[in-house]
Amino acid sequence: MENIAFTKDKRGVKIIDQTLLPNEERTMILTTKEEMYDAIYRLSVRGAPAIGIFAAFSLYVLADKIETDDMDVFLSGLKKYADYLNASRPTAVNLSWALSRMVKLAECNKRCNVMEIKQLLYEESVEIRKEDIAMCKAISGYGLSLINDGDGILTHCNAGPLATSQYGTALGPILLGTERGMHFKVFADETRPLLRGARLTSYELYKAGVDVTLICDNMAAVVMKNGWVNACFVGCDRVAANGDTANKIGTSGVAILAKYYGIPFYVLGPTSTIDLNCKTGDEIEIELRDQQEIKSKFFEKPIAPAGVKCYNPSFDVTDHTLITAIVTQKGVCRPPYTESLGAL
Amino acid sequence: MENIAFTKDKRGVKIIDQTLLPNEERTMILTTKEEMYDAIYRLSVRGAPAIGIFAAFSLYVLADKIETDDMDVFLSGLKKYADYLNASRPTAVNLSWALSRMVKLAECNKRCNVMEIKQLLYEESVEIRKEDIAMCKAISGYGLSLINDGDGILTHCNAGPLATSQYGTALGPILLGTERGMHFKVFADETRPLLRGARLTSYELYKAGVDVTLICDNMAAVVMKNGWVNACFVGCDRVAANGDTANKIGTSGVAILAKYYGIPFYVLGPTSTIDLNCKTGDEIEIELRDQQEIKSKFFEKPIAPAGVKCYNPSFDVTDHTLITAIVTQKGVCRPPYTESLGAL
Repeated sequence: MENIAFTKDKRGVKIIDQTLLPNEERTMILTTKEEMYDAIYRLSVRGAPAIGIFAAFSLYVLADKIETDDMDVFLSGLKKYADYLNASRPTAVNLSWALSRMVKLAECNKRCNVMEIKQLLYEESVEIRKEDIAMCKAISGYGLSLINDGDGILTHCNAGPLATSQYGTALGPILLGTERGMHFKVFADETRPLLRGARLTSYELYKAGVDVTLICDNMAAVVMKNGWVNACFVGCDRVAANGDTANKIGTSGVAILAKYYGIPFYVLGPTSTIDLNCKTGDEIEIELRDQQEIKSKFFEKPIAPAGVKCYNPSFDVTDHTLITAIVTQKGVCRPPYTESLGAL
Repeated sequence: MENIAFTKDKRGVKIIDQTLLPNEERTMILTTKEEMYDAIYRLSVRGAPAIGIFAAFSLYVLADKIETDDMDVFLSGLKKYADYLNASRPTAVNLSWALSRMVKLAECNKRCNVMEIKQLLYEESVEIRKEDIAMCKAISGYGLSLINDGDGILTHCNAGPLATSQYGTALGPILLGTERGMHFKVFADETRPLLRGARLTSYELYKAGVDVTLICDNMAAVVMKNGWVNACFVGCDRVAANGDTANKIGTSGVAILAKYYGIPFYVLGPTSTIDLNCKTGDEIEIELRDQQEIKSKFFEKPIAPAGVKCYNPSFDVTDHTLITAIVTQKGVCRPPYTESLGAL
């Protein structure tokens, strides 16, 4: 399942529209800057690494269409496109990272002609994707070393191939192991309110032939009590220096249940999500989102009266004492995290 | 909000159709045995005590329409109606309990004439409702003694007036306290998959003027971590002799989170739900329900691919070690429950 690719003529970027999953697998081909901006803005492409790759691919396509031999004109056009795309989701770190990496490459190779730079930009975008695949594969390998063939795994939200390039982070060990002929029994929390566990994780694992069972978030405790879970795998949005981890809302609850039932709880993500400037989870600001996500999104009819308030935090912070290990592309970090994360 | 009542002429039973809440408050008037059966079967009336009251009211209405002066003919007709209604939900204890109480009353008063027996049946049905109100009020009073004005309370699923007669069990202390001028800040878990916390609890509390905030089930941990919860109140479907408690799926997870955060966790229910013949929660069989409840009920489109399996237990068992107290109409039971429940 290649979620981001060039069209054959390399004049467009192909993606799977994630907003329509799992009911419709529609491929979108994006050729204009407006379409590319919208694809990010409307969450047709989501997941930090996937957004970075998509932005790099898009910037190449746009750059290739700049018709000039004048390097300054070309560079100025390239920067304008980069700034434009970068505004689509201002807080996504990988978006600005990938775009500025592409722009810098062009600036550092001013001595080449425009044709040659275009070729370099193409190669760089492919390289960004390749690096992400290698990173996910490394994370997956380390994660796989923590589980055994036949294990039951519980996951929350979605950090699979759709959100990255291939394998994903939290789903990586499961997909890599499956590729190697291993069998796991995966329980996917539906992950309210946006249901990415149901809509994306169960879809990705099912398509990959993994034995996946969808549960409501409030069923995780029973599945653990039944003895069906050997490990929990979750992704991360930001990891503080002490190991406190921000991830999709509900993650900290799963970690507390896992602790109670003596089940190892693993966080998987690239080293780029570790923020050593952030001492503890208390410094991580939690985004509050619209109450309609809880009350009416996805539903036929609102599930509560219009006047009822909702509290809708998008993330929560899992205390480092609840985390058995943090798995990055550089290896498995164990407590005390202040030391093990610092050593990376 | 009177959820079950006679029509003015006492020839029908009025209920609020719970299946349409919270989007529509439709009153149904049921006059035939088929309509009454359907109201229970289709969950227009639900909650064990509410079903019992409704069945008693219905049986009176049907009995009143039996046109005979022959006592044997009358009793035989009455029993047929009772058997018919009793088949609407075979596992509901209160349904058969209320119906057989009505039939026994008629049998024990064979010396009266049919007119007099009809009057006795009417009075008995009103008495059943009155007893439930008194029981809920007693539970509410004991529950209220465990919290303070201004407290934050977290609830799961629905055990309010709609499921009973008035006050309810888990919501009783909140409603009784509010009636007395106290203020609480209530967090209602939406309670997937059937969303009764959203659809019924938030609706009932909002209508009663209580400060209620709806959350997804996976947000309970954050609300507790934020220091907003002073106590958890939940209902119960069955309590074992050692205090292990079966209740709506997700209850045990809330109890584990409450334990982790040092928050008292209270179970509220009538003594009739205590089953001393059941030694521990291991003996309680858990009903598994259809996967479409998770994947498609209430949604515009299915939330997961058709081939993905679901695990959908309707209840879970909360270990007695997680329960701070069990509150019945006879008082507050504390651990060890084998002693305190036995003493009731």
